[in-house]
Amino acid sequence: MTQNTSAPLAGIRIIDLTSAVVGPYATQVLGEYGADVIKVEERSGDVIRWICGRSPTPGMPGKFLHMNGNKRSICLDLKQEEGRQALLKLVDTAHVFLHNMRPAALARLGLDAETLRKRHSPLIHASIVGFGSKGRYAGRPAYDSILQGGTGLASLFATHGAEPRYVPYVVVDRTAGLMVANAVLAALFAHQRDGAGRTLEVPMFESFAALLLSEHMYGHTFDPPTGPLGDQRLLDANAKPVQTRDGYVCITTNTDAQVKRLFEALGRSDLANDARYATSLARIEHVSEFFSARADVVRQFSTEELMERLLEHDVPIMPCHTLDSLLQDPHLRDVGLIENDTHPTQGAIKRIKPAMSMSGFQAKLRHHAPHIGEQSTEILRELGYSPADIENLFNRGIALAHKPDPSSRPQ
Amino acid sequence: MTQNTSAPLAGIRIIDLTSAVVGPYATQVLGEYGADVIKVEERSGDVIRWICGRSPTPGMPGKFLHMNGNKRSICLDLKQEEGRQALLKLVDTAHVFLHNMRPAALARLGLDAETLRKRHSPLIHASIVGFGSKGRYAGRPAYDSILQGGTGLASLFATHGAEPRYVPYVVVDRTAGLMVANAVLAALFAHQRDGAGRTLEVPMFESFAALLLSEHMYGHTFDPPTGPLGDQRLLDANAKPVQTRDGYVCITTNTDAQVKRLFEALGRSDLANDARYATSLARIEHVSEFFSARADVVRQFSTEELMERLLEHDVPIMPCHTLDSLLQDPHLRDVGLIENDTHPTQGAIKRIKPAMSMSGFQAKLRHHAPHIGEQSTEILRELGYSPADIENLFNRGIALAHKPDPSSRPQ
Repeated sequence: MTQNTSAPLAGIRIIDLTSAVVGPYATQVLGEYGADVIKVEERSGDVIRWICGRSPTPGMPGKFLHMNGNKRSICLDLKQEEGRQALLKLVDTAHVFLHNMRPAALARLGLDAETLRKRHSPLIHASIVGFGSKGRYAGRPAYDSILQGGTGLASLFATHGAEPRYVPYVVVDRTAGLMVANAVLAALFAHQRDGAGRTLEVPMFESFAALLLSEHMYGHTFDPPTGPLGDQRLLDANAKPVQTRDGYVCITTNTDAQVKRLFEALGRSDLANDARYATSLARIEHVSEFFSARADVVRQFSTEELMERLLEHDVPIMPCHTLDSLLQDPHLRDVGLIENDTHPTQGAIKRIKPAMSMSGFQAKLRHHAPHIGEQSTEILRELGYSPADIENLFNRGIALAHKPDPSSRPQ
Repeated sequence: MTQNTSAPLAGIRIIDLTSAVVGPYATQVLGEYGADVIKVEERSGDVIRWICGRSPTPGMPGKFLHMNGNKRSICLDLKQEEGRQALLKLVDTAHVFLHNMRPAALARLGLDAETLRKRHSPLIHASIVGFGSKGRYAGRPAYDSILQGGTGLASLFATHGAEPRYVPYVVVDRTAGLMVANAVLAALFAHQRDGAGRTLEVPMFESFAALLLSEHMYGHTFDPPTGPLGDQRLLDANAKPVQTRDGYVCITTNTDAQVKRLFEALGRSDLANDARYATSLARIEHVSEFFSARADVVRQFSTEELMERLLEHDVPIMPCHTLDSLLQDPHLRDVGLIENDTHPTQGAIKRIKPAMSMSGFQAKLRHHAPHIGEQSTEILRELGYSPADIENLFNRGIALAHKPDPSSRPQ
């Protein structure tokens, strides 16, 4: 293992008992910043290995690979006492313990914050829960989609006669994952100053509800209300990509100057000087008319003409990419976001690189996404287990490793 | 100002030259963890003050309040040299300088990373940009909606005959904001260890594209592809709240056991034992049939019956909340997410509290969201300006403060 000493989180060890998206995405971020993430899997492994389509060898689908680089995997049967003891030894070497188990299961295994921090007091013990422990839904199961509905996001689509629907990616999981990374980083920062451990809880429901209410509580923030509940600009039926002569394009004009330049660029100085659209307050009053007027003008041009004219007039515009065209986007190629790589067992893959940049630090892939328990032996050895001990743990099914089958490798 | 000494970021000063959502949301998070955020506004103030509906006194709409608590505002005319000098003095006292200006504007003001870090080397200089500086779109303007389209998110709605559309909240801005907070926290952690400054860049387009591709590159991760581009489970027309006899409900069953329990709870053991739905791989093969079968069964029950039966069988379920019903949710009341509060000039407001919890730290509101330049005088005084100097800066329009007009207070 090569250590990138200039990585901001170099030397920080995270024991990651999470599966699916929220936790693995959080530790993906922490791993990209250089943390030593040890993924602890049960026999069947992270559920995301099995519900996200096929891979050259089983259990390694694209979504799993993208979220689990820079992690080593140890597979332990925590229901056997010696498996649990191995995990506790691992926790003793760590700065952070992160899990998304439900509280009852966690306590049964003796992995709750009180127990672990009694054993290893500087530990940051972080719980991802669907619902905060102080409320009546505590302990209930949660998934992204029920939280999209439960926070009101799905219903926001049900305006203008439409049905409620989900956003076509796991937006609550991803958002919560970033919030978990924030909480862990804040606790690590504090730990670096005072040496103390901390107990964290990030409840997905409340966290996402807080975000969505901050966006949409709107006029109901005040008593008496100053306007409707819900940001009508975002809920307007015309708040969507605009149809061009030959497709769709995304145009946004928030400032008065941008609106003026938009209409001028398209030869409509009459609209550029229309009092209904000249100021932001006026546009809020006439939001539907504004979107309609804009749509009528834009429809006269091809996407290419619009891109050219509006970029020249410094009006924010982008093509309405599909996943296909996004993969061909020239800017993404310039910055090398997608890299052709070879996974040791999955063959040729497209790897997604971190997008942020930090001086003095080059985010490098230190480990390819692992098979279940791929580093079980290596990690047990680091904990001081002898080769005989390790063999014993394997023989008794306490430690496991799914050895990739060379015959199933891609050609 | 009361200092919460146990806040993880207590004593960390952030000079925040951002406006709109990405930057202010990032500094909201950092402020909730205890950072001393100084919001630097130009004469007209953060644009979000003016495009988000009415407030009891002008420029203080709900969305602005929710994102700008715990911040003090100084209003400076940076185009005048003495205003710029005041900002530079402020930067000398700070750990982090965060902005979302376009590169050319930043350089014109001499606030680029090279210049500022030459002056104050331990500074973390963080840039939020629409497009990374290494690619051909560098310097172009960006907003949430054009990036929803530009990253392919809008097109993901355009399956099954529908049009592309935007998610009804600024999902790219919010996601990027959390990523910015992560980057700043990682840099602060590193700074705490080595005392060094760093230059950060978070490009919104690439950052969100990376997230979305991690979700949807799917079978095209591999060469040759093992399946389609796009996670069909998330794109399926039935991936939406389910209609009940009297409304909608959100049900998610990812594990084999949950699927079995769902059908059993609703008296359909025939479906519980149907081989097409018994395993996750089988359900992927029969995804549309599975969603249809589920919809047919669920439609026979009322929302209340379903909530009761499925919670009893430990199947993940939530009501499909509206914004209205979300504000009444009993769990959110239990945890006190929304608090009735009084803003000094806006009167009675609903305040959204941070959802995460951290032991030894109670996230408190240290400052209400400020008016433009509300703390201009206080901050200039802290920088060592004499009362005469300050009066001079105000008289010449270099420092400004929009004093709230007491006559326009809410009744």
